[in-house]
Amino acid sequence: MVMSRIILAIDPYKDVEIKELIARLTRVKSYIVGIKLGLPFIVRYGIMGVRSIIEEACDLEHIILDFKLADIAPIMISAIEPFIDVGINEAIAHAFIGLKGGLQELKEYLNKNNIRLILVISMSHPGSIDVIDHSLNELIRVAERVKPYGIVVPATRPRIIRMVREKLLSRGIFVKIYSPGIGAQGAEPGSALRAGADYEIIGRAILFSHKPEEIAMRIAEIHEKLVD
Amino acid sequence: MVMSRIILAIDPYKDVEIKELIARLTRVKSYIVGIKLGLPFIVRYGIMGVRSIIEEACDLEHIILDFKLADIAPIMISAIEPFIDVGINEAIAHAFIGLKGGLQELKEYLNKNNIRLILVISMSHPGSIDVIDHSLNELIRVAERVKPYGIVVPATRPRIIRMVREKLLSRGIFVKIYSPGIGAQGAEPGSALRAGADYEIIGRAILFSHKPEEIAMRIAEIHEKLVD
Repeated sequence: MVMSRIILAIDPYKDVEIKELIARLTRVKSYIVGIKLGLPFIVRYGIMGVRSIIEEACDLEHIILDFKLADIAPIMISAIEPFIDVGINEAIAHAFIGLKGGLQELKEYLNKNNIRLILVISMSHPGSIDVIDHSLNELIRVAERVKPYGIVVPATRPRIIRMVREKLLSRGIFVKIYSPGIGAQGAEPGSALRAGADYEIIGRAILFSHKPEEIAMRIAEIHEKLVD
Repeated sequence: MVMSRIILAIDPYKDVEIKELIARLTRVKSYIVGIKLGLPFIVRYGIMGVRSIIEEACDLEHIILDFKLADIAPIMISAIEPFIDVGINEAIAHAFIGLKGGLQELKEYLNKNNIRLILVISMSHPGSIDVIDHSLNELIRVAERVKPYGIVVPATRPRIIRMVREKLLSRGIFVKIYSPGIGAQGAEPGSALRAGADYEIIGRAILFSHKPEEIAMRIAEIHEKLVD
């Protein structure tokens, strides 16, 4: 078995049928360690779609619901509630909403339901410089206080991955770093792991290539060398 | 007809059937100017649910899809796409994510589809002090550049409503201010309008009261006096 660190982002293209997505997942399953389902997936295929994808992916370690939650606690909890029994084990929220009335209650709710929290503390698009990047230290502080299972830092920002990894480690905080931005957004496979990330989130580059298993295998091999 | 400024937030309680929500909407419809559907609604009732609610609400001025979008542009656009033909005319996103690769492309997409953008620049929960409140000036600057149709500032923050209203007006920027936080979150009906907001977003206080139409009528009357 290949020791990959690939988490497959299952973001549908406009008119893809869910059957096609499941078929593609099946083809690459042995090269990945998790899947990530976001809002574009949920609004198209609903909870039934989530169930049928998870049926295919249930033996993977990470089944991530990625709503990028960013609301007051009761709304975030209510949005997650229908999914707690379908096999999700991780959920992504934004660090920027802060603790009280936000992430604190969300974390408690997720803990009770054995779902791990992952916090976004950096994003990959150029617009990040408008607000998010200025708040990096505060976002890291939120993560230090919330103690999530993982954080999201894009592969396109290796310096931030390195900096956050060192900062949190030096304070004895162990979090997994999830890095999107590989492939379609420009970062090379393996580059985030090299900077200190634990997982590389890859979507289109694998899912919509003509040879998904070849691409997945090639990336998994890169990962294997780095993880050894 | 009562000149209310109520936008009804339709956030389902755990086991409410959509029929019940529609029945309650029907009872208060003549006292409101819009509805807001969020993630908790969508994950439970799907697009079919959105269609059936909008069928009942189609003559209202504001039909708001409130995902509190906070992702890179292609993901936000893909999440909105299935809803552009169902009668939505406004959508809410976080100012926090910034322009390039985020709000800029989202705004263009929404413009093309005659959907107005509303940006969150302040939130009501105590956790806002961790990051969001420190970024208020930057969030306002994002709003100045994006020129959304409206912004969200909670009724629990009347000082911020006033400040933002003056700041934007003094720069010739006309935006509608939408204020959640009335009722269940503690602010008095009318208090946000008095501070300079254009609409008060009210959910549970109307929707799950024993006498929805009475409550809605009473608030609409308060609004009418203020708007005159």
